[in-house]
Amino acid sequence: MKYTVGVDLGGTKVLAAIVNEHQEVVTTTKLKTAFDEGPQAVARQMAHGVRKAVADATLDFSDIVAIGAAAPGPTDRATGIVANAPNLGWHDPVPLGAMLTELLDGLPVIIENDVNAGTYGEWALGAGRGAQDVVGIFIGTGIGGGLILDGKLRSGARSAAGEIGHIIMLPDGPVCGCGNRGCVEALSSRKAIEREIAHAIQSGRPSKVTDLMGKKNKTRLTSGILADAWASGDPVVTEVLQRAARYWGLLTANIVNLIDPQRIIFGGGVMEKLGDTLLSQVRPVAYQHFIKKSDADQVAIVPAALGDNAGVLGAALLAHLAPPN
Amino acid sequence: MKYTVGVDLGGTKVLAAIVNEHQEVVTTTKLKTAFDEGPQAVARQMAHGVRKAVADATLDFSDIVAIGAAAPGPTDRATGIVANAPNLGWHDPVPLGAMLTELLDGLPVIIENDVNAGTYGEWALGAGRGAQDVVGIFIGTGIGGGLILDGKLRSGARSAAGEIGHIIMLPDGPVCGCGNRGCVEALSSRKAIEREIAHAIQSGRPSKVTDLMGKKNKTRLTSGILADAWASGDPVVTEVLQRAARYWGLLTANIVNLIDPQRIIFGGGVMEKLGDTLLSQVRPVAYQHFIKKSDADQVAIVPAALGDNAGVLGAALLAHLAPPN
Repeated sequence: MKYTVGVDLGGTKVLAAIVNEHQEVVTTTKLKTAFDEGPQAVARQMAHGVRKAVADATLDFSDIVAIGAAAPGPTDRATGIVANAPNLGWHDPVPLGAMLTELLDGLPVIIENDVNAGTYGEWALGAGRGAQDVVGIFIGTGIGGGLILDGKLRSGARSAAGEIGHIIMLPDGPVCGCGNRGCVEALSSRKAIEREIAHAIQSGRPSKVTDLMGKKNKTRLTSGILADAWASGDPVVTEVLQRAARYWGLLTANIVNLIDPQRIIFGGGVMEKLGDTLLSQVRPVAYQHFIKKSDADQVAIVPAALGDNAGVLGAALLAHLAPPN
Repeated sequence: MKYTVGVDLGGTKVLAAIVNEHQEVVTTTKLKTAFDEGPQAVARQMAHGVRKAVADATLDFSDIVAIGAAAPGPTDRATGIVANAPNLGWHDPVPLGAMLTELLDGLPVIIENDVNAGTYGEWALGAGRGAQDVVGIFIGTGIGGGLILDGKLRSGARSAAGEIGHIIMLPDGPVCGCGNRGCVEALSSRKAIEREIAHAIQSGRPSKVTDLMGKKNKTRLTSGILADAWASGDPVVTEVLQRAARYWGLLTANIVNLIDPQRIIFGGGVMEKLGDTLLSQVRPVAYQHFIKKSDADQVAIVPAALGDNAGVLGAALLAHLAPPN
């Protein structure tokens, strides 16, 4: 049996998972960790996570044929380089693939962007199973995504495909972290939602958010607080989330009208907390804007199924496609 | 040698072309024709165009192995049905594939949307040669397009891919022919450009367009008049076209950030008349909005090369992929 290990580099933790060649999950492992020591230390933590997963699964390291690593930034599969990863403080390219290969006894390492890996994981093991064409949209601090077309992860000609959060939907809209204006991320990420709610409260509109943050002793508007305020019908939160859901619906329609996939999967922190009720607002907007309406119901708009594990499982599965060293 | 015939159904003419199995163009033929007699008559005209092309090429009809037909509306390749074709007055589905097969001695017929076929033609024989991932954007009365991904025309899960003109770029913008608001077609097709110029003139702004239309005895703002007014630096036309070019640049960036193709081809009537100068306005806007900028110059933004023949040649080439009857 051939095993691969996936390792996903989050902001505060390393996840690792092992899958076998039948796409079965053997084990998943989590390491809490701090990332303030630079790429070399991070690579060591990831390698440690990989070896821990192998031990947890009571496998021998020689059973492993390849590693798949997911990183929160633009990656180049051909070179194994992560161009940058702002959440980790990486502003220059990091040859993560080569670093991990060296730390892991020369095993081949596939490097993939975390949301691409997450889309792949959802496609193979989660909400995308059985479809050939799937789009993943992950709503969190930012908005990311990935495309599976004809049963393959689309990396694009320059390894730059799937930048779903930076589709411009309001050319003179708010400035995005990327420098452009009116990206869907600038309009409807958790950060954008937080900003709009804060503005509303600062300008004097009453909202339960203030109370909830005090009670839970939070300085940040977490997805959990958002969910509670939404459930209680708070008018500010309702208005802001409905506007965001409208953008996600229009985004979905734009993607469907361009590439016509079979399934759209919504994941990420905001969706995990608010998925069902929010998706029920996204769907009608999306379907209304499909150009081909006669069979619109063939396009499913569904919540993600794997939560935090989507990326690491996707990475582990992608490693099965790695060329042997 | 295996030959196929392409036939493209325009608003006022039928084009037909023959290509051989080496993707060489044997002949192209044009028939001026009127289409006010319904689908049956149109199908007969198309069949006539096919037989005329075969005769023009001094081939025998038995040399032809398949037909590719391009139609101005949504098509379903599996069934050979054209869902509708507003320009031809077809508001109900027409089984054009079956009709042509019957008129053409039982030959297999592939039906494809005209801009998809045009993108395929440009990819195989025109401005897209040598690339694996190409997006065609055709700016005319409307805006249409097509995608070649990994060397294949993308039809999509529901034969609905490539509706580039209906990407929403201004959610509360002007109403589009499709019923949605703020589609790029509603913002920057020739019809939209015409509408904005007419509004400016009606509200009293001086423009050379009025003179040019009088001199050329035209009641409609043709692409030729637009080109003359633009060349003369007319302020109204300059402003409206620059705004349109900005939308095409943003549209390009949206497509590139989503699917990361190698080449974007701009064609259609407006581009044919104004291509070089307009494209030089589109490119900087597009490149500025690419998320991955380090190798942005690897994505070429180029004018179409085949003019009116793109669709018919694409249809003829697609017919080589037809399953034998």
